[in-house]
Amino acid sequence: MPVLVVGSVAFDTVETPHGHRHEILGGSATHFSCTARYFTEVRVVAVVGSDFPSEGLEFLKSRGVDLEGLQVREGKTFRWEAVYRGDMAQAETLATYLNVFEDFSPVIPDSYKDSPFVFLANIDPDLQTEVLRQVNNPVFVAADTMNHWIADKKEAVKKLLASADAAILNDAEVCMLTNEPTVPLAAQRLQSDGTKYVVIKKGEHGALLFTEQSCFALPGLPLTDVRDPTGAGDSFAGGFMGRLAQLGEVTESALREAVLYGCAMASFNVQGFGVERTAILTREEIDQRLEEFRNLVRF
Amino acid sequence: MPVLVVGSVAFDTVETPHGHRHEILGGSATHFSCTARYFTEVRVVAVVGSDFPSEGLEFLKSRGVDLEGLQVREGKTFRWEAVYRGDMAQAETLATYLNVFEDFSPVIPDSYKDSPFVFLANIDPDLQTEVLRQVNNPVFVAADTMNHWIADKKEAVKKLLASADAAILNDAEVCMLTNEPTVPLAAQRLQSDGTKYVVIKKGEHGALLFTEQSCFALPGLPLTDVRDPTGAGDSFAGGFMGRLAQLGEVTESALREAVLYGCAMASFNVQGFGVERTAILTREEIDQRLEEFRNLVRF
Repeated sequence: MPVLVVGSVAFDTVETPHGHRHEILGGSATHFSCTARYFTEVRVVAVVGSDFPSEGLEFLKSRGVDLEGLQVREGKTFRWEAVYRGDMAQAETLATYLNVFEDFSPVIPDSYKDSPFVFLANIDPDLQTEVLRQVNNPVFVAADTMNHWIADKKEAVKKLLASADAAILNDAEVCMLTNEPTVPLAAQRLQSDGTKYVVIKKGEHGALLFTEQSCFALPGLPLTDVRDPTGAGDSFAGGFMGRLAQLGEVTESALREAVLYGCAMASFNVQGFGVERTAILTREEIDQRLEEFRNLVRF
Repeated sequence: MPVLVVGSVAFDTVETPHGHRHEILGGSATHFSCTARYFTEVRVVAVVGSDFPSEGLEFLKSRGVDLEGLQVREGKTFRWEAVYRGDMAQAETLATYLNVFEDFSPVIPDSYKDSPFVFLANIDPDLQTEVLRQVNNPVFVAADTMNHWIADKKEAVKKLLASADAAILNDAEVCMLTNEPTVPLAAQRLQSDGTKYVVIKKGEHGALLFTEQSCFALPGLPLTDVRDPTGAGDSFAGGFMGRLAQLGEVTESALREAVLYGCAMASFNVQGFGVERTAILTREEIDQRLEEFRNLVRF
């Protein structure tokens, strides 16, 4: 089944202890699309500026991504500059130029309105809610957010998450949103506020899935060649939503498998800058990585 | 097979967001013994002061712990005072009174010298090395340490760990010891320096086991009733070494199962102050907790 993603397409300038890249293709919708497309049809709603090169569009199209919902606006594309130091656990933002993204107003093309799986990447929670008004009874909606929106529009974020099926957040975000000191307490709070499934991304520590009945945890794969963490959360979401849409059902076992695919995609993401690793995976590499995760937790 | 532990017996005064306890039984050898004894015979080498109440000794003895190696010295028992705030991830030490522990010189009784499994809890690395000189060809030696010894006696810690079969450290310690930014790189370094097995305790994030052939990871059980993290690392070691000694072999599958038992014991530890929870477990409670961990990672 197709999955719709609404998010950003950007140019990232990133420095880590392992190198430097200038204005490489990035943004939540990009990272999501590059990973989800291995498993299902991906539809993108985002905005780029008139400076966006046709090769960028061709790159995404050639990866099977449907770009009918990608708006091209007069002006410059969203740009972000950051540096990661030491253990690369935290990005230090040097500059954010929203450019055309500042006035982004998502419009869902008619051909996307029946999308059964929807991922609302990190944008203004009011716009995320607006997207939900434009789609027809999706099977499964998952939403992300970030500290900036939790600080500025906490009630809007809470309302959005309560109306979504799943929240896909990182550990710091879920604690900040709920004012709880630990992830299990925060997840419990979010569930009691109406979010059925809570998925927590924990970077090198893997991911947690809270359903109504149970909790599932997958550790991170210990990697010695992490190069750039940018986009790992969106690559996780791409693997998670892509696999769930491919399975076409939202059951306990499908959700657990989706977390596995999410962690696998995130692990590829961090091994390269931008989408340089996730964009060119073979089916064999993906299968091998899934097997590495299975061996990691096997008794 | 019996397991020997060399470490501390202490009185802890602890405050957390969930309560306060004054001078409760603590120390690495105590937490280790209380958990390892469910699985195997435990022999303790430690020191207490003449102020140590006979009920304290009876408490440990009644739990099947062999105290022949527990020295009673004129003076006061080791005392530690700490507070945990917020998410309780870090203890803030308010006071440390080493007392009789300051001049602790471990003496291994003859009846302990054949101990096949040995756990060197966090004491001066020179004393840990001295203990190894007193035991006869143990099957498996594991050692812990702490930031204090890594800062003051790094070379002695490294030498000790290179001569042990396994290091059981937390994530911050292994990175500090090896000057590596991430746990996988740090574990690799420790292994190339001669430690065959590296076990990393990650608190709420579970544990990692690096063997020569592979890596195993177990996530932490998401708990909503964490009361006091004190001693969780030693309870982990108790479960790990206790189960390994019970199995009586050091194979890949035995080591993985030992990590499971370690995580299970640590999860009980944090649900109560001191050994309040770990001291009184039933076999049914332990089996149920092991099953909870298995369900947590089941696809």
